Amino acid sequence: MLETPYLLFLGDAPDSLAAKVAQGIKDWRPELAVGQLRLDGCNANLKIPDLTIEEAKARGARTLVIGVANRGGVISESWKAVLKEALEAGMDLASGLHNLLRDEPELAQLAASQGRKLHDVRLPSVKYPIANGKKRTGKRCLAVGTDCSVGKMYTALSMEKAMHERGMKATFRATGQTGILITGDGVPLDAVIADFMAGSIEYLTPDNDPDHWDLIEGQGSLFHASYSGVTLALIHGGQPDALILCDEPFRPHMRGLPDYTLPSLETLQDVALQMARIVNPDCKVIGVSLNTSAMDDEKAAAYIAEVEQRMQLPTVDPFRQGAGKLADALA
Amino acid sequence: MLETPYLLFLGDAPDSLAAKVAQGIKDWRPELAVGQLRLDGCNANLKIPDLTIEEAKARGARTLVIGVANRGGVISESWKAVLKEALEAGMDLASGLHNLLRDEPELAQLAASQGRKLHDVRLPSVKYPIANGKKRTGKRCLAVGTDCSVGKMYTALSMEKAMHERGMKATFRATGQTGILITGDGVPLDAVIADFMAGSIEYLTPDNDPDHWDLIEGQGSLFHASYSGVTLALIHGGQPDALILCDEPFRPHMRGLPDYTLPSLETLQDVALQMARIVNPDCKVIGVSLNTSAMDDEKAAAYIAEVEQRMQLPTVDPFRQGAGKLADALA
Repeated sequence: MLETPYLLFLGDAPDSLAAKVAQGIKDWRPELAVGQLRLDGCNANLKIPDLTIEEAKARGARTLVIGVANRGGVISESWKAVLKEALEAGMDLASGLHNLLRDEPELAQLAASQGRKLHDVRLPSVKYPIANGKKRTGKRCLAVGTDCSVGKMYTALSMEKAMHERGMKATFRATGQTGILITGDGVPLDAVIADFMAGSIEYLTPDNDPDHWDLIEGQGSLFHASYSGVTLALIHGGQPDALILCDEPFRPHMRGLPDYTLPSLETLQDVALQMARIVNPDCKVIGVSLNTSAMDDEKAAAYIAEVEQRMQLPTVDPFRQGAGKLADALA
Repeated sequence: MLETPYLLFLGDAPDSLAAKVAQGIKDWRPELAVGQLRLDGCNANLKIPDLTIEEAKARGARTLVIGVANRGGVISESWKAVLKEALEAGMDLASGLHNLLRDEPELAQLAASQGRKLHDVRLPSVKYPIANGKKRTGKRCLAVGTDCSVGKMYTALSMEKAMHERGMKATFRATGQTGILITGDGVPLDAVIADFMAGSIEYLTPDNDPDHWDLIEGQGSLFHASYSGVTLALIHGGQPDALILCDEPFRPHMRGLPDYTLPSLETLQDVALQMARIVNPDCKVIGVSLNTSAMDDEKAAAYIAEVEQRMQLPTVDPFRQGAGKLADALA
């Protein structure tokens, strides 16, 4: 669990895309970010106050979050100077980078001597149990995809927002690095040891109020040869009551697998439901979420309507329309 | 890859079951075991020569394999004396225990100073790739189960034996600790990081002769809430051409999950085939393997015949009958 609020470090991000973790925090948890810190050459801008370490500290920042992908997999000297200053000012550091903060001796020593924490959210910080398959109280909703990176995290975060607007009890449950940094907590599922995958999701989504929904961030796809095992562990550990089908239409092939085409939404529905009902016979598919970013407004609207008619399920592009329809379907 | 032949260390095994790893090596790779070493109080006996370290060394033993589960999760002082003697005699050590050889400072120091290896096969020793899903040459067969521990390893080893007897090209591919110690090589799949599970199986079963069969050791079950993700990664990394359905009839519930009943063989067939065909549309179910150890001979024979008739698939209990029928079905 990260201490909040955050100072978002954008470093020397070459473009906005490189700062997508910081952008995610600003979009979904704006109240957690007191400001941004940018170095010379930074081409990203979250349009929140530019703060020095000292100013951020004065505004209450507890953790500096590295909200940018680093170049060349190396934490540069110019970054390190800022990170050390943050530690000296009494902030923790949090990062989802592959190269770990804890592997930088200067940072590790300084954090230890200052009594500060280095959060490398790419790795699990918990010893997860083996899943026991027991029914939990409360409700769970999981986004499943035809492929990786089709908008499952965005869908779950949009649903949380729409549900809160409706006064419903809902918690986004992060299963990936970006989601963990956005919410300050979660399971980095792709880095969990095989035997403990499903157990880590049980741990993440414990007993809750009968009318509370966990919105579990999806990962991978049952149809993706590289990551399908992760997805099935998520389904069996999550015991979903409701599934959302996610798709990015007209992708030529599965992400990273040129020899594999994407399944139809109908096939995804059949297979995901069959696998989910092993652990929860009452599981239902309650809606469809489409990423239509490659289409213009008119085409997108027509396509969404077509899918809604074909699947006979509430269908949205949450980026264009919000996820109100899906929240209503859960209610 | 372990150096062979082995001296099998049975320690102070309280009964035969505690020495099942050693028994597995003796049953399936008798040519690899020069003898056994038993301490006072050992109640297991493989009926192979009892040897001292010195005698084993004289007969060419290269690795001492801990073929016994230790009591209390601790490598005792009486064990350590023997293990140190083996290292000093120039043997490597191999173990599938949870408590690792490398975590014992005396053993780690002695191995380093003697230039010997400590093989903790419970942990991966390879950095596996992400699966790429590409079609490989050669054929692959995978045993899938209604549940965990229904005889998948035994089935694959029996098939290898029957295929070799028929002059067919076949290699058992171990995916668990016991299988790795039996064959000296393999992937400890349950200890692999989530993202690399399917890739580890691609690594284990590379391109081969067109008429060569890899017999991949199954793990878990698609229907087991704790481990199903491991099983799906095995299916998608293995790209099986043939599946064997494994079952232990009349189990009251899934292993370790009192709230879950086992699926029928028909349901297993449907679901496993559907998931396998995502990566290999030509995959077929070619037989059934039953563990009828709880039945007498007559009941077992009747039950096997009944299942064969019902499923219209070659059906055996490999422990009672060998796996000749399954080998013939692959041919």
